[in-house]
Amino acid sequence: MSERIDELLKIDPGLVLPIMEAFVRLEVERAGIAKGIVGLSGGLDSAVAAAVTVRALGPGQTVLVHLPHEVSSPESERDARQVADQLGVDLVEVPITAMTAGYPGFDGLDRLRAGNLMARMRMAVLYDLSAEHGALVIGTSNKSELLLGYGTLFGDMASAVNPVGDLYKTQLRQIAEALDLPAGILAKAPTADLWTGQTDEEDLGVDYATADAILIRLVDQRLSVARVIEEGFEEDLVHRLRERMRANEFKRHLPVICKLSERTVGIDWLYPRDWGT
Amino acid sequence: MSERIDELLKIDPGLVLPIMEAFVRLEVERAGIAKGIVGLSGGLDSAVAAAVTVRALGPGQTVLVHLPHEVSSPESERDARQVADQLGVDLVEVPITAMTAGYPGFDGLDRLRAGNLMARMRMAVLYDLSAEHGALVIGTSNKSELLLGYGTLFGDMASAVNPVGDLYKTQLRQIAEALDLPAGILAKAPTADLWTGQTDEEDLGVDYATADAILIRLVDQRLSVARVIEEGFEEDLVHRLRERMRANEFKRHLPVICKLSERTVGIDWLYPRDWGT
Repeated sequence: MSERIDELLKIDPGLVLPIMEAFVRLEVERAGIAKGIVGLSGGLDSAVAAAVTVRALGPGQTVLVHLPHEVSSPESERDARQVADQLGVDLVEVPITAMTAGYPGFDGLDRLRAGNLMARMRMAVLYDLSAEHGALVIGTSNKSELLLGYGTLFGDMASAVNPVGDLYKTQLRQIAEALDLPAGILAKAPTADLWTGQTDEEDLGVDYATADAILIRLVDQRLSVARVIEEGFEEDLVHRLRERMRANEFKRHLPVICKLSERTVGIDWLYPRDWGT
Repeated sequence: MSERIDELLKIDPGLVLPIMEAFVRLEVERAGIAKGIVGLSGGLDSAVAAAVTVRALGPGQTVLVHLPHEVSSPESERDARQVADQLGVDLVEVPITAMTAGYPGFDGLDRLRAGNLMARMRMAVLYDLSAEHGALVIGTSNKSELLLGYGTLFGDMASAVNPVGDLYKTQLRQIAEALDLPAGILAKAPTADLWTGQTDEEDLGVDYATADAILIRLVDQRLSVARVIEEGFEEDLVHRLRERMRANEFKRHLPVICKLSERTVGIDWLYPRDWGT
């Protein structure tokens, strides 16, 4: 894949990795605890987040959890296990099938609703285990997903701190290669693994190399839609990605509170996370 | 209760209610849908949120859901049903007991972890039903809870829009009285109903009348801790509430992303929720 990375998307893993590690170390310490917990899906993003956490805190201070559902691909479990093995951490495994089966009518849900419910069950388990282990929940949503809203609000998008959220998928892949993650992780097509044969790029209708090249121009380079189209990107696609970013802006905001008083949570009562005592 | 309301906490429901209604109407319309959905616990906050939603959108455009667990008090269901009846809306009921039972080890969890898991199961169901009905999730967390962090992150604190989040519990009670909500709702002690006999005021170690009087001075009036103590509030309590606000600040923030690029989601890439096309 490396040969067709857009110039703007090229990063230096040797520069970026230590920043991510320091971030995790600092945030865990700031929370007054010692551990981090990562939900390992078997995909690339969570593998990178796990590797960064282990480098930051050590394998003994990292909890790795795989949360399979009966519809999950068997390769996901194999790949999650390989990552945990490589990082020297025992993999905790908690199946979520019985939880979703406890929801009346789960079998009748369409794919999107079933997928969102599964993502939220995983969040609930991950947060419960974070309480058991005294560990901070490390996020795994990448920048491509956050911008396009390709994730479940209060599901996989929920975390305390996220070391990978400012890297596009194409950039995370460069980190994964530098980390020498297992071949299975590097080779397979990105998937949310919510149904058999699902791939992100089919869902999104575009490959990440192209999507990321457009997004970095619109967001980081602040180019206009017209200018990005001039650079040779397909007109319909540029419009479609921009509209998708716009329509999913609500996933990047806190719940909106009706303002009635002098100082309102999330509006004008905003303290730094670490305000003094 | 009304006789001992602190002067600062007195509100005019006739002034505040139309603002809350307009807020719900506008936000639902802005989302491009027609309905609102509220999780009715049987308590006062969600009853007010439901009443505001019905006044804003009409009973036919309001979905009310009760999500009992086997540990929930039977009065909660009775009270939720009375509210729905009064508002002219059929109550949807989805038990969550089988979902929590599907989590290995649920029975061994302490009260706090079990309560958080239950709150997150309820959120997952509420969001799934919001997709089924095409309805916006209306929040029910009040300002006392938000400031003290007395709620479950990604559980009952999760919503799209929250009409009641800028009102202290003591103020919500005034609204509830003006709305003439069922006597059972007005009479009972506030409770998260996560175990038998639980009450908020026992959990928090202070009654809401006192807590709210302290909070409004610290937050809205911007008084110093010393000044609030001078006004005659118990020193230990003022310190304890302020520390609780500080320690729970993380629940009022989005997941924190490690900054690596020009423009980072939630840090410096912040668009209004309604940015144009």
